[in-house]
Amino acid sequence: MKSVLILVDELYEDLELWYPKYRLEEAGHKTVIAGKEAKKNYTGKHGYPCVSQAAISEISLKDFHGILIPGGFAPDKLRRNPQVLELVKQADKEKKMIAFICHAGWVPISAKILKNRTATSFFAIRDDMENAGVIWKDEAVVIDKNLITSRTPADLPLFGKAMVDWLKD
Amino acid sequence: MKSVLILVDELYEDLELWYPKYRLEEAGHKTVIAGKEAKKNYTGKHGYPCVSQAAISEISLKDFHGILIPGGFAPDKLRRNPQVLELVKQADKEKKMIAFICHAGWVPISAKILKNRTATSFFAIRDDMENAGVIWKDEAVVIDKNLITSRTPADLPLFGKAMVDWLKD
Repeated sequence: MKSVLILVDELYEDLELWYPKYRLEEAGHKTVIAGKEAKKNYTGKHGYPCVSQAAISEISLKDFHGILIPGGFAPDKLRRNPQVLELVKQADKEKKMIAFICHAGWVPISAKILKNRTATSFFAIRDDMENAGVIWKDEAVVIDKNLITSRTPADLPLFGKAMVDWLKD
Repeated sequence: MKSVLILVDELYEDLELWYPKYRLEEAGHKTVIAGKEAKKNYTGKHGYPCVSQAAISEISLKDFHGILIPGGFAPDKLRRNPQVLELVKQADKEKKMIAFICHAGWVPISAKILKNRTATSFFAIRDDMENAGVIWKDEAVVIDKNLITSRTPADLPLFGKAMVDWLKD
């Protein structure tokens, strides 16, 4: 059993949070959803509620084997939080899994970990990804060492499987 | 590869449709989402959009190995449609998989296939289930031959796995 930190904020992409969360649980892993505040309800881009279990400021990276960042417009909020950027930067240094999908690439861009890494994203932020040094691929799932990336909710079947497979090793 | 028919209508429970759909796809199966009308957008209880791929009236049961009925308030609409009830009744006769979760028990109740069957549901409709002859269990997933049932979105990790395991046989 491994542990994955899931980052949430307002307007997170509903399925990009819940599908991987449940898929990881099916595989026997523990997930913790953290937002700026603990026990706060964040509303998805399409309206699905998500109550955070922990505050990002209380998170200790050593308790986790990886981080999942769902897309939607939550990443635009999350990237403004220095504690989020520090968690992502440190997770990358320690080669923990960092999985992000759709617009979530904005967070690792601001954590400055993407130079010369291969990844994908929603097409709208391709320029942001490439300007940050990403070798960008138009593929359903791209894995570069500890980075797992996908483009849209339609990629979730492969994104979920990639996370589960990565955590097996 | 097997095929699963997914029934949708207004106010379907968002995750109870999308999680199993993507999980079945991960396992290599085909899914077809059918509503009263084809190519119509149905909005989930929490707001997630779902465009139907086919009209229920065009569905031929022989093309499918099973049926998934998500919860929410869509089942209250679906149970009024004689074509839905006929599909569910016939699927049960042919021992095809019938998976339903939460409030979706209303549909097999009206298809009159639940007498002396063991199943679960959202607790609010337990009386309806028991009045229809169900031996009701408060368990995350209950499997009685071709029937796979769960209670709420929190059961989805086990519900998805149960469907995938059933389709393996």
